[in-house]
Amino acid sequence: MKGYVQVYTGNGKGKTTAALGLSLRAAGAGFKVYIAQFLKMGDYSEIKALEKFAGQITIEQFGLGHFIKGKPSNQDVEAARQGLEKVKTVLAAGKHQIVIMEEANVAAAIGLFPIENLIDIIQNKPQGVELVITGRGASAKVIELADLVTEMKEIKHYYQKGVKARKGIEK
Amino acid sequence: MKGYVQVYTGNGKGKTTAALGLSLRAAGAGFKVYIAQFLKMGDYSEIKALEKFAGQITIEQFGLGHFIKGKPSNQDVEAARQGLEKVKTVLAAGKHQIVIMEEANVAAAIGLFPIENLIDIIQNKPQGVELVITGRGASAKVIELADLVTEMKEIKHYYQKGVKARKGIEK
Repeated sequence: MKGYVQVYTGNGKGKTTAALGLSLRAAGAGFKVYIAQFLKMGDYSEIKALEKFAGQITIEQFGLGHFIKGKPSNQDVEAARQGLEKVKTVLAAGKHQIVIMEEANVAAAIGLFPIENLIDIIQNKPQGVELVITGRGASAKVIELADLVTEMKEIKHYYQKGVKARKGIEK
Repeated sequence: MKGYVQVYTGNGKGKTTAALGLSLRAAGAGFKVYIAQFLKMGDYSEIKALEKFAGQITIEQFGLGHFIKGKPSNQDVEAARQGLEKVKTVLAAGKHQIVIMEEANVAAAIGLFPIENLIDIIQNKPQGVELVITGRGASAKVIELADLVTEMKEIKHYYQKGVKARKGIEK
């Protein structure tokens, strides 16, 4: 399979869930999937569900799980750096056909790593790997390099009505 | 849990995969999910993957799997009608916390059933159910009634480069 670069960005709901659904479909076709989550850390329902695909879908978290306001701490930066290193290792090893960088657009935008690091990964992606990058605020260069870009545009959101993130739906 | 109505529409990639990801997350939290696919029929990779969640995620297909051009045939209409009936039965039974109507917006738009049927389902949704409706071309009334609407907007698509749907990625 020739792999492409997919980007899911925009302010609407559905970016992470689209990447999850993609993992599920890929697993159904016998592919191996690696997911690096750059901002989340904790006991999310999707991680529990993905245990059913142990050996086929691997998910790792490189975020400290707190909201980053202003300048990220050294620990935040170090966690993201480890995530980037791991993604490069996984890409080089060639055992996974799908590699997903969850919230990598946001991680770059808030300064967890320079955007050049992400661009470098895209430009050196092995042919046979489908690389999926999610998160609002994708940079113009990432959009330019990507083969597929969907903007998830928020038309209406129940957060505006005061609905909080619910277990099994948002987390 | 109080359930809401979520709509994923627009011409971009990610609507079906977002609904799939949502199912996965919900299953991880112990919810039961029912998915009715209104247009697809066949051996999709996601169906194979969902077998791992037998008893928790149920997926049924009510489409004849061919591209409908012009006026739908009686068989197409009948298949969609059965889908609507099944969704109503599932909603009334109250055993599933998440009910997904895959491509229901398209099914209504191409005349497989009157839009009033879909509106009726939304308006009579039991409180505790999260109803998710996907497909491009959501009607204005459906958007008005929904609590959350994301438009998946195509910024760039590799179909434009002549890439065909690939097993494990698009199907």
